[in-house]
Amino acid sequence: MTADNAGDSGGGSAPDSEGDSRPIVYDLAPNCTSEDVEAGANYHAVVNGVVEYGIFVDVSDEVSGLVHESNLDRSYEVGDRLTVTLEEVKENGDIAFDVFRESTYQTVVVDHEPDLTPIAGLEAGDSVHVEGQVAQIKQTGGPTLFRIADETGIVSAAAFREAGVRAFPAVELDDVVRVGGDVESHDGSVQIEVDSLTRLDGDAAAETRERLDAAFEDRATPADADPLVEWPAFEKLRDDLRDVARLLRRTVLEGRPIRVRHHADGDGMCASVPVQLALENFIESVHDDADASRHLIKRLPSKAPFYEMEDVTRDLNFALEGRARHGQRLPLLLMLDNGSTEEDVPAYENLAHYDMPIAVVDHHHPDPEAVEDLLDAHVNPYLYDEDYRITTGMMCVELARMIDPDLTDELRHVPAVAGLADRSKADAMEEFISLAEAEGYDRERLLDVGEALDYAAHWLRYNDGQSLVNDVLNVGCDDEERHEELVEFLATRAERDVEQQMDAAASHLEHRRLESGAHLYTADLDEWAHRFTYPAPGKTTGKLHDRKVKEHGEPVITIGYGPDFAVLRSDGVRLDIPRMVEELNEEVGGGGVSGGGHLVVGSIKFVKGMREEVIDSLVEKMADAELDEDLSSQAVVDTEI
Amino acid sequence: MTADNAGDSGGGSAPDSEGDSRPIVYDLAPNCTSEDVEAGANYHAVVNGVVEYGIFVDVSDEVSGLVHESNLDRSYEVGDRLTVTLEEVKENGDIAFDVFRESTYQTVVVDHEPDLTPIAGLEAGDSVHVEGQVAQIKQTGGPTLFRIADETGIVSAAAFREAGVRAFPAVELDDVVRVGGDVESHDGSVQIEVDSLTRLDGDAAAETRERLDAAFEDRATPADADPLVEWPAFEKLRDDLRDVARLLRRTVLEGRPIRVRHHADGDGMCASVPVQLALENFIESVHDDADASRHLIKRLPSKAPFYEMEDVTRDLNFALEGRARHGQRLPLLLMLDNGSTEEDVPAYENLAHYDMPIAVVDHHHPDPEAVEDLLDAHVNPYLYDEDYRITTGMMCVELARMIDPDLTDELRHVPAVAGLADRSKADAMEEFISLAEAEGYDRERLLDVGEALDYAAHWLRYNDGQSLVNDVLNVGCDDEERHEELVEFLATRAERDVEQQMDAAASHLEHRRLESGAHLYTADLDEWAHRFTYPAPGKTTGKLHDRKVKEHGEPVITIGYGPDFAVLRSDGVRLDIPRMVEELNEEVGGGGVSGGGHLVVGSIKFVKGMREEVIDSLVEKMADAELDEDLSSQAVVDTEI
Amino acid sequence: MTADNAGDSGGGSAPDSEGDSRPIVYDLAPNCTSEDVEAGANYHAVVNGVVEYGIFVDVSDEVSGLVHESNLDRSYEVGDRLTVTLEEVKENGDIAFDVFRESTYQTVVVDHEPDLTPIAGLEAGDSVHVEGQVAQIKQTGGPTLFRIADETGIVSAAAFREAGVRAFPAVELDDVVRVGGDVESHDGSVQIEVDSLTRLDGDAAAETRERLDAAFEDRATPADADPLVEWPAFEKLRDDLRDVARLLRRTVLEGRPIRVRHHADGDGMCASVPVQLALENFIESVHDDADASRHLIKRLPSKAPFYEMEDVTRDLNFALEGRARHGQRLPLLLMLDNGSTEEDVPAYENLAHYDMPIAVVDHHHPDPEAVEDLLDAHVNPYLYDEDYRITTGMMCVELARMIDPDLTDELRHVPAVAGLADRSKADAMEEFISLAEAEGYDRERLLDVGEALDYAAHWLRYNDGQSLVNDVLNVGCDDEERHEELVEFLATRAERDVEQQMDAAASHLEHRRLESGAHLYTADLDEWAHRFTYPAPGKTTGKLHDRKVKEHGEPVITIGYGPDFAVLRSDGVRLDIPRMVEELNEEVGGGGVSGGGHLVVGSIKFVKGMREEVIDSLVEKMADAELDEDLSSQAVVDTEI
Repeated sequence: MTADNAGDSGGGSAPDSEGDSRPIVYDLAPNCTSEDVEAGANYHAVVNGVVEYGIFVDVSDEVSGLVHESNLDRSYEVGDRLTVTLEEVKENGDIAFDVFRESTYQTVVVDHEPDLTPIAGLEAGDSVHVEGQVAQIKQTGGPTLFRIADETGIVSAAAFREAGVRAFPAVELDDVVRVGGDVESHDGSVQIEVDSLTRLDGDAAAETRERLDAAFEDRATPADADPLVEWPAFEKLRDDLRDVARLLRRTVLEGRPIRVRHHADGDGMCASVPVQLALENFIESVHDDADASRHLIKRLPSKAPFYEMEDVTRDLNFALEGRARHGQRLPLLLMLDNGSTEEDVPAYENLAHYDMPIAVVDHHHPDPEAVEDLLDAHVNPYLYDEDYRITTGMMCVELARMIDPDLTDELRHVPAVAGLADRSKADAMEEFISLAEAEGYDRERLLDVGEALDYAAHWLRYNDGQSLVNDVLNVGCDDEERHEELVEFLATRAERDVEQQMDAAASHLEHRRLESGAHLYTADLDEWAHRFTYPAPGKTTGKLHDRKVKEHGEPVITIGYGPDFAVLRSDGVRLDIPRMVEELNEEVGGGGVSGGGHLVVGSIKFVKGMREEVIDSLVEKMADAELDEDLSSQAVVDTEI
Repeated sequence: MTADNAGDSGGGSAPDSEGDSRPIVYDLAPNCTSEDVEAGANYHAVVNGVVEYGIFVDVSDEVSGLVHESNLDRSYEVGDRLTVTLEEVKENGDIAFDVFRESTYQTVVVDHEPDLTPIAGLEAGDSVHVEGQVAQIKQTGGPTLFRIADETGIVSAAAFREAGVRAFPAVELDDVVRVGGDVESHDGSVQIEVDSLTRLDGDAAAETRERLDAAFEDRATPADADPLVEWPAFEKLRDDLRDVARLLRRTVLEGRPIRVRHHADGDGMCASVPVQLALENFIESVHDDADASRHLIKRLPSKAPFYEMEDVTRDLNFALEGRARHGQRLPLLLMLDNGSTEEDVPAYENLAHYDMPIAVVDHHHPDPEAVEDLLDAHVNPYLYDEDYRITTGMMCVELARMIDPDLTDELRHVPAVAGLADRSKADAMEEFISLAEAEGYDRERLLDVGEALDYAAHWLRYNDGQSLVNDVLNVGCDDEERHEELVEFLATRAERDVEQQMDAAASHLEHRRLESGAHLYTADLDEWAHRFTYPAPGKTTGKLHDRKVKEHGEPVITIGYGPDFAVLRSDGVRLDIPRMVEELNEEVGGGGVSGGGHLVVGSIKFVKGMREEVIDSLVEKMADAELDEDLSSQAVVDTEI
Repeated sequence: MTADNAGDSGGGSAPDSEGDSRPIVYDLAPNCTSEDVEAGANYHAVVNGVVEYGIFVDVSDEVSGLVHESNLDRSYEVGDRLTVTLEEVKENGDIAFDVFRESTYQTVVVDHEPDLTPIAGLEAGDSVHVEGQVAQIKQTGGPTLFRIADETGIVSAAAFREAGVRAFPAVELDDVVRVGGDVESHDGSVQIEVDSLTRLDGDAAAETRERLDAAFEDRATPADADPLVEWPAFEKLRDDLRDVARLLRRTVLEGRPIRVRHHADGDGMCASVPVQLALENFIESVHDDADASRHLIKRLPSKAPFYEMEDVTRDLNFALEGRARHGQRLPLLLMLDNGSTEEDVPAYENLAHYDMPIAVVDHHHPDPEAVEDLLDAHVNPYLYDEDYRITTGMMCVELARMIDPDLTDELRHVPAVAGLADRSKADAMEEFISLAEAEGYDRERLLDVGEALDYAAHWLRYNDGQSLVNDVLNVGCDDEERHEELVEFLATRAERDVEQQMDAAASHLEHRRLESGAHLYTADLDEWAHRFTYPAPGKTTGKLHDRKVKEHGEPVITIGYGPDFAVLRSDGVRLDIPRMVEELNEEVGGGGVSGGGHLVVGSIKFVKGMREEVIDSLVEKMADAELDEDLSSQAVVDTEI
């Protein structure tokens, strides 16, 4: 303790001393040590011995010293109280006091400032004090468990008041606290059995918070990893990607859970699986609890490339349950390969009220004005005049490496899988493929992995299928051969199912030649394709389209429709699907037309009874579309249909 | 022990003494105390000291006394056995015996009647005996855990025979037992480590059961809470509501689980959420286990306003699993906002065989003759010549307050939400709304809360979404602002989705004017509305109907139909939908017509191929319907479509 | 230890002694006992006493002896080192050594061979060594838990290295290990706290593995139970059934999990419920952990009578999660009442790469060439020139009795239920029914049980509904009356629902008389039956067909069709549905026809738009079909529709 910080609520409780010019006399707590005293300061003391050459006084149980008889102007007996000034701490530790004789002063009570132990350094058997931020407050049938995060790690502190009754009810999530207690071994992890738990307030809290903040910020710094390939277009968004990495690392350091929502297609899984693995590794390095990663990160596939109400509702309820039942902070929401569009805004607006930070890495055409203010971090190639060709999988492999650079060797083939799955025509594609080839993946196998991911995603439905997906993608998979066999199995089955769908549908395609010279194909998929199976209408349309492009070359437009939807694919034609939807909505009254997507690929919904009008109208628009050889549509799996 | 109850199996084991005229000599267990003896009774004794003025005899380790030499007619040595009669217990506790000289007698063995400790008073470290009813028998991998309920609480008693092997296999659920053992602290709760566990039989059991019963009945008494509003119509059903409250409280006191099934709409949630919260609070006050409420109460939404086979099957299987895996009693089934109709009878009949009590609070038109005998409690306004205008939510707010009166402040706005959600035209509505307004809810917000509940229920599907729903309804929610934002978010989204549905469907409504003057609107919702989204056909029909009523005023009938169903709404027309269904079934052969609902609102199912005939026939019937300005239909969300 | 096995890695570590002709001198570990020494062998020794008649030497802490002075040619002092030859172990245990004088030798280090304790004999408090095979390695937040299986049982061994860190990382699943440690009581079971854990390699491993293998094989021997009825046709497949029983018992003994997939119909449940119960009983007798059966066996219903991709994907992911999260071996897959057909091959091929053994008991028409090589065991009556009349339920009752013969009394009625549910016309049916009648089940009730199983399966969907199903089938159900009431409830409801479906559909059946004289009925079930309810189209077609057969007698063909499927039933007509499907596929271009089933019952899928062509073509084929009075179709519930 020093005179400077004596007023800190962490150290002592001072009267409001602003403008108080009276000298201060400190009243030390019994356990104060020599660290809590300093020369020149005044203390309340009690006589514990009278000798010829003076009196010995205690200012705490630990701190005593001599007032030399030359400083005394009266006699004292043991037990007498007086105020003293500390004159000097001698080299041998002896302390010399003088009597403090002023009768007007203010008393400041001083607690002993304990030595703080960093959480990473806790060992069973120690009696310690730690200081940190409350990351979780879980009420058990017995004690209340506080998870405390400091600069070095996170630990549980068990406080018992009464069975099932909340201990220290005034302490809340995110408070900065000091915890004193004994470190015990508990199910193999260490845990603090709490003796004291104080919420820091005012300056003490601010100071500690600042210290923690600086440390979190420091440890949150993303790893510096050279990009897998040199790619100028990609470099533009690297800084924003680092911001996401920093946010995620910091989220882990503070003990907040993370909920990942990703588009359930090849690119979406190439994006989310590496990030999940990197976060799991980082969580395990921060927490000493083997189950922490299971409790703190959850990856969930979404069928649509935007945040559907059903998912929002479930996520929100899950988050609230986690807080109610486990005393967790509400999770950070990480959207991968979806989340950039206006469709997502209402959900974000709501989550904002819930202290749920949101980060998005997406390559779907964004509505930056709409979403930007609501996001804590946002990466999207369109924000840098790039486009969907930089796939989310490519971005997230770099993101994963910024979180855990040791993953690099496991991830070299992933950007190529992502790019091929999303039919990216990025300049870097060949380099990514070479990179994968160097790891033993030829182009055919990379395509197969993408197909297998897509097929697995279809059958897993709302299940994350973590172990299976890791084996398919060969990330976090420990058996190369098993990976190969699994991919072959799934890809072969997927191809067989696609073949069956093609056999049924191809002969029913209706063809017309537009004036522009473009080939237009339409197919009623409800009539001519198997329903409720793989591939679904979106992918079926894509496969039919690809065949026709192969047959004729560009320009080709394909429309696959069902009772109340249509999927559009085009190559070499300048479409603007969002505008078309807008026009259709005006032209076809009571059609209930909605939808959109990218410019040249998308899906449209309408009411069943207006199908003919909508499709006819759509075909007319196609006839008016200009040709443009550079435009080709991305994988149709980017629709929810 | 007294001579009177010496034969109780709880205290001693008597030979069949009927007609046995021989005097009784009690053989006391070594731990019998002075409480187990009384003047005039005879005891087996042993000499433990010989003095000048007589001999000292022990009748148990704890009970000794003097046989005065004046009563002796021979000499005794230490260790000699004899029979004695207790003459007197003196004020200082000294006991005087006489020798019992008859040679013909019957011996009755007497166990010491231990002092019983009330469960609520157990403290770790005590050695105790408790007496209660077995509420659960859970076999763990180690000991067998018995949950014992007495007049004061419920506690776990762990009995160990062999790892994973059932201890005291003769003891069953509901048995009355006496448990002896040491109280230990276990995960923060107290638990008895069982030394002895005896099933009481015969009179002892009956007596204890009677005592427990009286205590349960007493503690089960519902709280006396003044009604939120004065409402004579409501007062008629208050007594029945108290019966339900009593049954539920008693169910908790006996440790039986409760499974709540409720209609998944606004009123159903306004009914079930407060009751769930009240029961959770009550459970926590009875059990010392923080997890108890999670294990003992489960709320589940049902899409239909009756007990569907899928739900019955699952509930029954769940109940049986709970018994098989956790040794729980089968749960009480509480049906809220559904359960009063004939459709529910077969399920109830089956559950009756399963020792699953059933309580129903509903305001759908009941079949009292059909269900009454099968229910343990039934509240329905139609049973008192009232009708659906007393909504289930209104009733259940009072029910919740009878279970936990401390909830009152949280619930004042709920009847208004329920009433508006179900379009109740009850006289008390304005008072309920004023009550809510006093809490800061204006009419608009109350409607929004109802809409938000409905919307959340739609997307949560079979999930109870507890935390989310509590926030929406602002019951058990600790953050007013979050509640408001959440309601706004959900209500706005709901309105947007309704708007989209209206845009699509409204222009396709077919209108005709019936001879009666009523407007009849029909719409093919499969053709002209979005499918598989919010709002579903039932609510869509309702919204279309409301618009037309607003436009024309009454009388209006609206029929929204799909491939194999039709939804009916009417205002100002005297319909009798159940009768119509009956007639249609006769008139339209092979139509498979079924359904029903209330008089003036309902849904009808038929086979797809007969739709035209059914709808035509329905329209004819509408043409014949009389007008009646007082009749208006309740929210159509009361159908499963 | 003997000279022979001194080189075993289990006992000592020998230099490569091939071709080394130098004599061996053993260097015994301090804890070696007299069991580790033998006459004629040489040892390193140290002098511990010098007496007149010689010197005492220690060859280990436990083994000492005398070198008689007659054998000494120089003097020794205490502490001197020398090499000795063991001459003789006298009757009183005294050992006589001679000095071993050769200066050229090789030293072999010898560890003490500890006494091994059989796992079944472990008792808390003992210090033991056990030897066995690693069945599971589960990393907890604290220690690593190894499940060790030896000849007598399975036990957990907890090894702690650091919290959450894998102990003995070199040890893998299936390794043979020796574990030393203290037996402690843990949650009521015993558990070894590991001091040492060594992987056996080379000969030691081979020897132990051989010993375990012989013991597993011995304990895996199926019980000898007399068949419930004498039935020559059945006897042909008994040996194969014993192979399945042996495989399953052995799987349990080795601690591998079992995943049962069964057709979700009456026969499939009559097959799987008894086998599940038998395996649970056997697991409990092998493991000392009450939860073991919950972790080690899972039964799952499948809607289709083959292994659908959705199920494969989920099973595989579940298996991988079990390994990743619980360190379990991948499960054995047991297919009951499905799994014999070519449709299953791709899934099996994939699982083969995953070390997942597969066993199949099925009575659907098999493709033995296709599946045989992929299965570890396969029983199907067609493999012995029998047919579907031997139902899977009949086979599995015998299988269950081979696993746990004590179940016999519970299962006597099950073959009759299975046979009636699958309309088996087996010769043994009457005997099975008599057997059931002797247990109090009349024919009507047996039919009801089958109907109730089917109904419950419908509503339980993907849930195994174990407790409910056990009660319905009265296997593992402890309350006869409850079983009866439950069956009545479900069967009555099922009949009512069937009746409603018949009422709607029957009048819409189209009839024509084929030239062959057969009656052909067709019905558009999408138009004329209720959809998405019980009974589904497959069963609806069957019920319609049965009525017509009853009405006309044979021959009758019934086709129930929907938008993109048709279900076929026939009696007295020689159909070959698989061939028809092949022909249709050629004749109807772009029809996407697939499907099949048995010869005379099956289902066909096609694209909606080609329905008319497919049905017309099908009817033509029916017209050409020959009559054959012996042919009748099995329950249509054997289709997934």
